[in-house]
Amino acid sequence: MGRQTRIAIVGYGNIGRGVHKAIGRNLDMSLVGIISRDPERVEREINNVDVFNANNEDKWSGLLVDVAMLCGGSAKDLPVQGPCFAKFFNTVDSFDNHKHIGPYANEETGELMPGYYQDMDASARKGKHTSIISIGWDPGTFSMERILADSFFPGTKAYGFYGLSEKGGLSMGHSDAIRRVEGVKDARQYTHAIPEAMERVKSGENPDLKPGEMHWRECFVVAEEEYDIGKIEEEIKKMPNYFEPYRTEVYFVSDEEMKRDHSDMPHDGVVIAASETGDRNKILIEHQNTWDSNPEATASIMVAYARATYRLNQKGDYGAKTILDIAPALISPHSKEELIKV
Amino acid sequence: MGRQTRIAIVGYGNIGRGVHKAIGRNLDMSLVGIISRDPERVEREINNVDVFNANNEDKWSGLLVDVAMLCGGSAKDLPVQGPCFAKFFNTVDSFDNHKHIGPYANEETGELMPGYYQDMDASARKGKHTSIISIGWDPGTFSMERILADSFFPGTKAYGFYGLSEKGGLSMGHSDAIRRVEGVKDARQYTHAIPEAMERVKSGENPDLKPGEMHWRECFVVAEEEYDIGKIEEEIKKMPNYFEPYRTEVYFVSDEEMKRDHSDMPHDGVVIAASETGDRNKILIEHQNTWDSNPEATASIMVAYARATYRLNQKGDYGAKTILDIAPALISPHSKEELIKV
Repeated sequence: MGRQTRIAIVGYGNIGRGVHKAIGRNLDMSLVGIISRDPERVEREINNVDVFNANNEDKWSGLLVDVAMLCGGSAKDLPVQGPCFAKFFNTVDSFDNHKHIGPYANEETGELMPGYYQDMDASARKGKHTSIISIGWDPGTFSMERILADSFFPGTKAYGFYGLSEKGGLSMGHSDAIRRVEGVKDARQYTHAIPEAMERVKSGENPDLKPGEMHWRECFVVAEEEYDIGKIEEEIKKMPNYFEPYRTEVYFVSDEEMKRDHSDMPHDGVVIAASETGDRNKILIEHQNTWDSNPEATASIMVAYARATYRLNQKGDYGAKTILDIAPALISPHSKEELIKV
Repeated sequence: MGRQTRIAIVGYGNIGRGVHKAIGRNLDMSLVGIISRDPERVEREINNVDVFNANNEDKWSGLLVDVAMLCGGSAKDLPVQGPCFAKFFNTVDSFDNHKHIGPYANEETGELMPGYYQDMDASARKGKHTSIISIGWDPGTFSMERILADSFFPGTKAYGFYGLSEKGGLSMGHSDAIRRVEGVKDARQYTHAIPEAMERVKSGENPDLKPGEMHWRECFVVAEEEYDIGKIEEEIKKMPNYFEPYRTEVYFVSDEEMKRDHSDMPHDGVVIAASETGDRNKILIEHQNTWDSNPEATASIMVAYARATYRLNQKGDYGAKTILDIAPALISPHSKEELIKV
């Protein structure tokens, strides 16, 4: 094995912690340091790792880093953080706002805005860096599975169902949305797939399904003492996009119950593509992930793509890439000779 | 859409027929002709397609073909056919003898032999062609799933189980092996996964499983009238590698029963990888294919990789490749702009 790939972690929340743990499981990687807007918080949490203040560019911009893992959120952090860091380092991130990956229309003005991909591409090229964006499982490996199925069996729709397990899948985005409702102290939202819809898809029907026909949403909420819980429930249920199109159940729990029953971050999902070949011969592809810890699994996938990022950069292949641009061999620690036997 | 990719089919058996049907479902592909060692047989079967005699190189070597789909068998056809055709055309094949893809030791002399990959690479480079080898689902997409899981979760073993459905998965190789037994007129072999083994794998145990602990084999045999069926059964069950390591059940059926009950070519299988992230958080990936027609599904996958073959060749990327060398975007008929939204 050659020298280790030197990794920096930018942002130390759930994903950043997951990347930290994943690096420990990859013998060809080493952690150079953590870059955070709140280095004191990080230093209270961990030892033996150099922590740098994100706002103090002079301190970290000269670090010998092969790949920086951008672990900020997609709503506010990455759109700023991403293009900034792509100037200095090769990067991997998990930008997951599907609508803003490519060019999109500004909601107010209608103006066509460059997507995250375009911003990252421009910045990475300027710095002669390589940036693999939107890595994880959705977007990420599930995007790849959708494209594979569509390529093999043209015209086949690939459907994503989430929350197949009894507990369902914890959606951070929907949990955050509930927390923004007045009177809500804390919240968790579990997404649940609707089995009847999955059966229709598996049958090869390729049905047109509305979001509310595929999933329902279960919310656990800790309310501030003085608030009307009926009003909170109503506010949640009528939230457009997030809850309004879905059957939504809201349960109010105590702080203690929340901590006891809802501290984990499980998620699961499946991509299903059903169609036919030749003369009415059925085909069915089911690609299912089940994670006890969604951020740790996402981070593990990101770390594998750090290998591809560095390898492409070494070959002079600069700019932004998505998972669809990456040949699978590039993410493996094994040599071509080992891989060819698989 | 630009002009269509021009495809030739080399060998018109089950896979060749599947490729023919799959081309009809891909609007960006057209069939230039079929090259066969027995053109008369092919011409009796189909109309409106030019058929060329494989032995008459002058007739087909000048054809305008973007990609030749090599549809011969892996045991005897492809080792000869592959390197020959790679001199004339870009190629895609489904070479599935895992042990001979890379260099291997000659069974008698122990001498290190170049693998199919090496032979194809040399021949394709000589002709400035691109050859994607071993495409299908195993080797093929299942190889890719194994490498992805191993890269994301280092040290995790990925297990392949086949024949999950009640009928099991029809193995052409094992059916052929039975047909070579004296007194056997016809045969089908269905592979069946052993559910208890799958459960052990899913639990994250990463067990060491012998082949006979993962699958059992069910054989349907039509015997020649004068032969002792007890002796045939014994011959089958003691066949090394093929049946000896497995629990094997043999049923004798009539010609009519064989035709009525065993004319289809279904197969299915799953890649399972179970492990953990961080501090004992479980992960589970299950990637399952269920095909009514194994050759048609395999052929559909091959046709998608014809796109990648041609695109790589246009970029001057010559030589042999496997599925692991191919970025997923290269097999899609959709543009980068369309794909980025997925």
